[in-house]
Amino acid sequence: MSEVIPEFSQNANNMRKSVIRELLKLTQQPNIISFAGGLPAPETFPVHDLEEATQQVYKKSAVAALQYGATEGENPLKAELIKYERSRGIQVEKGNLLITSASQQALDMMPKIFLDPGDCVLAERPTYLGAIQAIQSYQGKIIGIPSSADNDGFDMVEMGKRYERAKAYGEKVKYIYVIPDFQNPSGICWSLEKRKALLDFAYREKLFVVEDAPYREIRFMGESIPSIYELDQKGKNEGNVICLKTFSKILAPGTRVGWILAREDIIQKLVIAKQAIDLCTSPFMQYVIAEYLSMGKLDALIQATRDNYREKRNFMLKMLDKYMPKRFDLTWTKPEGGLFLWISLPHYIDTEKMFYRAVEKNVAYVIGSAFYFDEAELNCMRINFSYSSFEQIEEGVKRLASVIQDEIDAHESGPRGQTCPEGIC
Amino acid sequence: MSEVIPEFSQNANNMRKSVIRELLKLTQQPNIISFAGGLPAPETFPVHDLEEATQQVYKKSAVAALQYGATEGENPLKAELIKYERSRGIQVEKGNLLITSASQQALDMMPKIFLDPGDCVLAERPTYLGAIQAIQSYQGKIIGIPSSADNDGFDMVEMGKRYERAKAYGEKVKYIYVIPDFQNPSGICWSLEKRKALLDFAYREKLFVVEDAPYREIRFMGESIPSIYELDQKGKNEGNVICLKTFSKILAPGTRVGWILAREDIIQKLVIAKQAIDLCTSPFMQYVIAEYLSMGKLDALIQATRDNYREKRNFMLKMLDKYMPKRFDLTWTKPEGGLFLWISLPHYIDTEKMFYRAVEKNVAYVIGSAFYFDEAELNCMRINFSYSSFEQIEEGVKRLASVIQDEIDAHESGPRGQTCPEGIC
Repeated sequence: MSEVIPEFSQNANNMRKSVIRELLKLTQQPNIISFAGGLPAPETFPVHDLEEATQQVYKKSAVAALQYGATEGENPLKAELIKYERSRGIQVEKGNLLITSASQQALDMMPKIFLDPGDCVLAERPTYLGAIQAIQSYQGKIIGIPSSADNDGFDMVEMGKRYERAKAYGEKVKYIYVIPDFQNPSGICWSLEKRKALLDFAYREKLFVVEDAPYREIRFMGESIPSIYELDQKGKNEGNVICLKTFSKILAPGTRVGWILAREDIIQKLVIAKQAIDLCTSPFMQYVIAEYLSMGKLDALIQATRDNYREKRNFMLKMLDKYMPKRFDLTWTKPEGGLFLWISLPHYIDTEKMFYRAVEKNVAYVIGSAFYFDEAELNCMRINFSYSSFEQIEEGVKRLASVIQDEIDAHESGPRGQTCPEGIC
Repeated sequence: MSEVIPEFSQNANNMRKSVIRELLKLTQQPNIISFAGGLPAPETFPVHDLEEATQQVYKKSAVAALQYGATEGENPLKAELIKYERSRGIQVEKGNLLITSASQQALDMMPKIFLDPGDCVLAERPTYLGAIQAIQSYQGKIIGIPSSADNDGFDMVEMGKRYERAKAYGEKVKYIYVIPDFQNPSGICWSLEKRKALLDFAYREKLFVVEDAPYREIRFMGESIPSIYELDQKGKNEGNVICLKTFSKILAPGTRVGWILAREDIIQKLVIAKQAIDLCTSPFMQYVIAEYLSMGKLDALIQATRDNYREKRNFMLKMLDKYMPKRFDLTWTKPEGGLFLWISLPHYIDTEKMFYRAVEKNVAYVIGSAFYFDEAELNCMRINFSYSSFEQIEEGVKRLASVIQDEIDAHESGPRGQTCPEGIC
């Protein structure tokens, strides 16, 4: 058999070989406690209310919901989203909205409409894996900006340097990608000053800012800070901020519905792109969500989710305090929102190598290197606190702590180099 | 205000400015009878059964349906699809299946994984607008192959010539895109001989065939012909055929669920691509469809849809016979399946210019030039018979005939050139 060998595109060859996918497959064994996924707590899904909303759709709009829809999105959902945004102080009209097949689709559309191969994006280092994958699938380059020592956003001095260096080398920076609220994976929340400084920089350099805001509503302590989209709207109003939102973290990810806020000319370009991508997002799911929103229960649901995640976050922090080895070089973040903690381990621990031993002990995490697009930091991991039960959190942290302790012991008892054959310690 | 001007990618600049979108907006006035859309008949949607299936999902699998799902697709749906394909003589395993956000997503993924800018696709001329848009959005080129005089597929001699010429010019042909069953827009159904000849050509030249099969089940007369996917499977079994399927025409397009059949290595590459495109297709919709399929009613539904469309097709042909001007240079196809007829008008009629006059008379179609990617034929149109009621079909055809008659009269009464100022007659 002379098989026809596929010759894939550069785009396809540039797609990240998914080490992480392979690792995550290992976590599907029955006894594993997985802190790896970014899954919302299933107990927050308003199953009963969604069922009622769905019944209403079958009763009132079955044919429209089951037929093809407009690429822009269904009018009933757009009307509800306008109310939602206005209740949060954002002025939008229908022309500023595009319904997407959740945020990942929006993340795919940004490089699609902005990047030619080799074009650059400024982004936090580390940043969301799905955004990295999307940018790389169009052969875009990411210029990583470290966060400041205060963990309140970009190190602006470093950003300036790296941006100027890129320009000097003839690189084209097309947009800035940030997750200002409870960044994935670091949990960092940008301060008001940093948001303003970034916007000013973007105005000055005539750049677009892509503000990815999936966790914005999931703040369980501290005070909400205006989004960069809002700051522009209430500032110069140049419309150079594109804000990506989703129902995945505030309602249910299985619906696969999100939305983009942007200037009308940008939305129009995105509509043309989306037409060739999937014609439209499921009108059925859009009608179900519109019906659910019209019940007026979303705000209470978000509040309940916040309460749930605050408790789980606090409990996980307590368990980390209780079980983790006490060391200056073993630290974790204490985020005011979102779904994740970020753990930094002693420099000689490679969390990818440790992963197999963790899985043997029936606990899993995401290796930190997954979130880097340049030289990865190898001694970090992301753990999720929203999905597991309290019992699982305690038991999982206990297992994780013992795996880490074993690594430390092996390093400290052996001759230097024994546990780090590749010379990284 | 110094607005930040977007600098779009070449991909975005290459996206077809949607003349058609603008034209279609005109058709949304209340009194218009539109033959333009490719919409299934709403009366075929099994609303009651889908409602029951949805209730079962809420009862049995609400949490899984509302949570994130695997990129490959949900197991219950894949299991049902394996049964469905096997009942049609196709052998597939889980690894040969990818659930997509309907066929358009699959059409977007083909150029994504195969085409670098400038790479070529062999395709029917004319062909489906959405496929053209997708290929152009990756800067792919389409080499158009006319159909043979028998209307049974490619003119194979012409294909050979154009393929060799492209190769001589150093062009890279990456795959062949065809819609062998009731092609959109022409309605052509490929003969068995042509399917085999195309497959042999693809074997010889080591090319992939992308077989787009949305209308395959919508055959209302004549005998079904094996798909190219099946011919390969029962022939050399090289796995160089990728078959795209969807629930849009056999169940309901508002679900936005389709599937790809392909060799396992191709599916694996597509899974990595899809991860960055939308993570996964709505698990909720996948569970609803799996539940519906498990009820065992799909075959009867497809049969009812065929009966419905046969009647509407026959009625539309009758109305065309009754109302259209009788001329050798005014003809239409008589397809054995699908949703469309293709009308060819006297050469001096430009259906785009005529469109505005048709809308004034409250009838709409798709201008033929929308389906061309090179020099368009201007005197054609596609009309849909599945969506309208019988009353609308009669009234719409009557209006359309009178618009066409007016064009003919104006041409015949005026001096040459009066109705064709651009010198095309």
